[in-house]
Amino acid sequence: MQIFEKKELKKRSDNLSDWYTDVILKAELADYAPVKGTMVIRPYGYALWEAVQEIFNRMMRTRGVENAYFPLFIPHSLLEKEKEHVEGFSPQLALVTIGGGEKLKDPLVVRPTSETIMYAMYAKWVHSWRDLPILINQWNNVVRWEKRTYLFLRTTEFLWQEGHTAHETEKKAIEMALAAFEWYRQVFEDYLAIPVYQGIKSAAEKFAGAKTTYTNEALMPDGKALQSATSHNLGQNFSKVFDIQFAGRDGKMEYVWQTSWGLSTRVLGGLFLTHGDDNGIILPPKIAPIQVVIVPIESKHVKKNALQSARDLFLYIEPLKKELEGKGIRIRVDSSVESLGRKFNKWELKGVPLRFEIGDTEVDSNIIKVARRDTFEKFNIQRSDIVAYTERLLVEIQKSLFEKAKKFRDDNTRDAATYDEFKKIMSSTRGFIRAFWCEDAACEAAIKEETKASTRCLPLNSRPGLEHEASGVCVRCGKPASHRWLFAQSY
Amino acid sequence: MQIFEKKELKKRSDNLSDWYTDVILKAELADYAPVKGTMVIRPYGYALWEAVQEIFNRMMRTRGVENAYFPLFIPHSLLEKEKEHVEGFSPQLALVTIGGGEKLKDPLVVRPTSETIMYAMYAKWVHSWRDLPILINQWNNVVRWEKRTYLFLRTTEFLWQEGHTAHETEKKAIEMALAAFEWYRQVFEDYLAIPVYQGIKSAAEKFAGAKTTYTNEALMPDGKALQSATSHNLGQNFSKVFDIQFAGRDGKMEYVWQTSWGLSTRVLGGLFLTHGDDNGIILPPKIAPIQVVIVPIESKHVKKNALQSARDLFLYIEPLKKELEGKGIRIRVDSSVESLGRKFNKWELKGVPLRFEIGDTEVDSNIIKVARRDTFEKFNIQRSDIVAYTERLLVEIQKSLFEKAKKFRDDNTRDAATYDEFKKIMSSTRGFIRAFWCEDAACEAAIKEETKASTRCLPLNSRPGLEHEASGVCVRCGKPASHRWLFAQSY
Repeated sequence: MQIFEKKELKKRSDNLSDWYTDVILKAELADYAPVKGTMVIRPYGYALWEAVQEIFNRMMRTRGVENAYFPLFIPHSLLEKEKEHVEGFSPQLALVTIGGGEKLKDPLVVRPTSETIMYAMYAKWVHSWRDLPILINQWNNVVRWEKRTYLFLRTTEFLWQEGHTAHETEKKAIEMALAAFEWYRQVFEDYLAIPVYQGIKSAAEKFAGAKTTYTNEALMPDGKALQSATSHNLGQNFSKVFDIQFAGRDGKMEYVWQTSWGLSTRVLGGLFLTHGDDNGIILPPKIAPIQVVIVPIESKHVKKNALQSARDLFLYIEPLKKELEGKGIRIRVDSSVESLGRKFNKWELKGVPLRFEIGDTEVDSNIIKVARRDTFEKFNIQRSDIVAYTERLLVEIQKSLFEKAKKFRDDNTRDAATYDEFKKIMSSTRGFIRAFWCEDAACEAAIKEETKASTRCLPLNSRPGLEHEASGVCVRCGKPASHRWLFAQSY
Repeated sequence: MQIFEKKELKKRSDNLSDWYTDVILKAELADYAPVKGTMVIRPYGYALWEAVQEIFNRMMRTRGVENAYFPLFIPHSLLEKEKEHVEGFSPQLALVTIGGGEKLKDPLVVRPTSETIMYAMYAKWVHSWRDLPILINQWNNVVRWEKRTYLFLRTTEFLWQEGHTAHETEKKAIEMALAAFEWYRQVFEDYLAIPVYQGIKSAAEKFAGAKTTYTNEALMPDGKALQSATSHNLGQNFSKVFDIQFAGRDGKMEYVWQTSWGLSTRVLGGLFLTHGDDNGIILPPKIAPIQVVIVPIESKHVKKNALQSARDLFLYIEPLKKELEGKGIRIRVDSSVESLGRKFNKWELKGVPLRFEIGDTEVDSNIIKVARRDTFEKFNIQRSDIVAYTERLLVEIQKSLFEKAKKFRDDNTRDAATYDEFKKIMSSTRGFIRAFWCEDAACEAAIKEETKASTRCLPLNSRPGLEHEASGVCVRCGKPASHRWLFAQSY
């Protein structure tokens, strides 16, 4: 066996897709697993997922949503109950047919999502309006068989949260669906620094079994959209099928109104695609497991001085680390035996927002050399100013990454008045297109067939005013159309 | 559909097993799911699991163990690589044979544990001593087909953590295995208030593929032992099979030394069995999702006064709640529309350590009526003393629950000099028996066949001094025996 040598990272500027896979492997975010279409999320990648979990748990608690756990295995008969739902998922199911050495009479489905098993339980738990709302979320793994897979973005097994609520009235259900939708926007924009368009899915693109699907759509640097988290108003579709009834305040039996909403590890794929350069990924400070890496620069003097220098460095760095940690800043001191060059490369690859270099010179002059990952700017900062400076710089990097991504997204959102224009954009720059569409599914399918672009959403508030725009004609068929929809090719 | 009526809880004093199932369902800790042998962990039960996760994550971080995620599906061929391991798990496997509508050429195993898939990756990641140690844990779901299942204690699917580490030397691996073993003792004794005997498993009872298995054994109130968390020194058994080699400091290739260790939702079953009474479960304060429930006692006066009273109560309770929360105490105010009697029953059933009753009388006299769940004692506490008093009482309850359980365990740990004595104990009081055993597997199997008692462990430090006891003769066959082992019937 040979000693491992890190090969140079593929260039993002050459090919985004090649770079993406390469950087995920080299930055040790994930790795391919033995079963095709599955992957290992390595500790550095998983720390990002844990950060998302912490952020989202905090949001859910503000409305009293609680975590629980429902089984992995669903009887096939349960899944079959809701017609649209089973049709939507059937081609993607993994089936357990042998258990404990015996062939099972009824094969078990490995959950692709948990509506059916959860609602079978809700039917058992809900009796009166006093039992409502039910506000339950679970963090788990789901399986959807995929032919073509892509690290984080499309894998046979993935991790996610799925929130499932039941309410007395449709109004309360919609409020909940919209609250989750807004939490997702905050996760993307305020933490991952990924701007999103918020809107409603077309009938063809909505969740199998939903009345309305609310979606957050982000634009990746190659001009393709990433559907990033969806929230569904399920109406009474499932409650009627699963017989989730309650005695209302007036004593009459009614079906509950439901929502479901999910956010998966796919968002991490969006994060890696959005912020990066030829040196690696760039992590927004709010989500970065390590916000500042301190690299001690050991003295090149004779041995005796080197020892003295190492001790001085340690005595200089330790209180600095403590002080920054006291402000809630996540620090790593890299005292490994690697060369300086390798250390710099490693932490740039891994996208740590700030690097501090501290050597004899810095100790003697009481300064710290600060390098900013996103711009490569370097600053010499007085020791006495470093805490306030770091806090300010982390805020600044967060903001700057978002604005850069937003500018790209806005620059690549175009109106198309004619189908020729539409096709021309989709065969060159791609990006989002805003265009009138007649809302006929056949026309939508034809556009997808001819341009690879699907309806991403009917935007809600992304360009204020425009949603009340006078109606027009469908960009493809010329029939009357009430709204401009957002189109894009997608992951 | 009828309005749900809570039926009376079965008596723990009549039948522990019936009570156990009943209290888990009624306290809404878990429920049976549609697939036989699986269960739903409801929010109140899951909050306990989240508390265990938080505690254990904190412990793992002290040694730099990081969380990650490996796939659910393992190729059957991987599992087959380690002979003992596959033999141990084969009868319990769930197999996916159909994926995406097609029959799979190679069936996939739903992980019963992750040694094989993780170590296939470790072989890819480890090259030099610089890559060691690998310190990875994952929190996930595993599936082991079970014929007879029992809520929390034995279910086809369960949640757990599995730590898997790889080291340069056996010494370091053993240090790690012992550290996890000690963390488990702390989880049980210091948080769940469950005393454990710590020891080593016999060859027949150890983990399939391990060199040594360290186990924590608790005693349940029916005299049966619960194996609660195990830590394994895997030696080089797996590294040789999976070819996990590294270039050592001397440049020579060596196989890594490994450990694995796991703690599952089964411990919650142990928690519910250990602490409880005819009124419900009793939660140790350190693990309780709610430590204090405040029940406002609304005035029975005329309407106008009632409103005034409710406002006064609110103004009295809110600052109290804030003050206690400021000390890190977990509070719930129960302002629901239920009757007082139902509220008291509900929170007793759910085992909340302390209940505060606050009504007009208490507001007027500036006192709080405190009821202690474990002893039913009631105290009138001055408002000014309540914070310090609550903190003290929570510590006191934690200690008292542990001591009560420990006394029971100690009282039910007996020495047996003859096999008649052994059999008599096992057919009456049960509990732990300390007895000399020849360490012959045939003798161990015979004892199990004849008394239902298995070797639980060779205790390490549970009764200091005794482990160095002069040798004796095997309690069953009379052959020479070097050690007294702990025997018990087990869950």
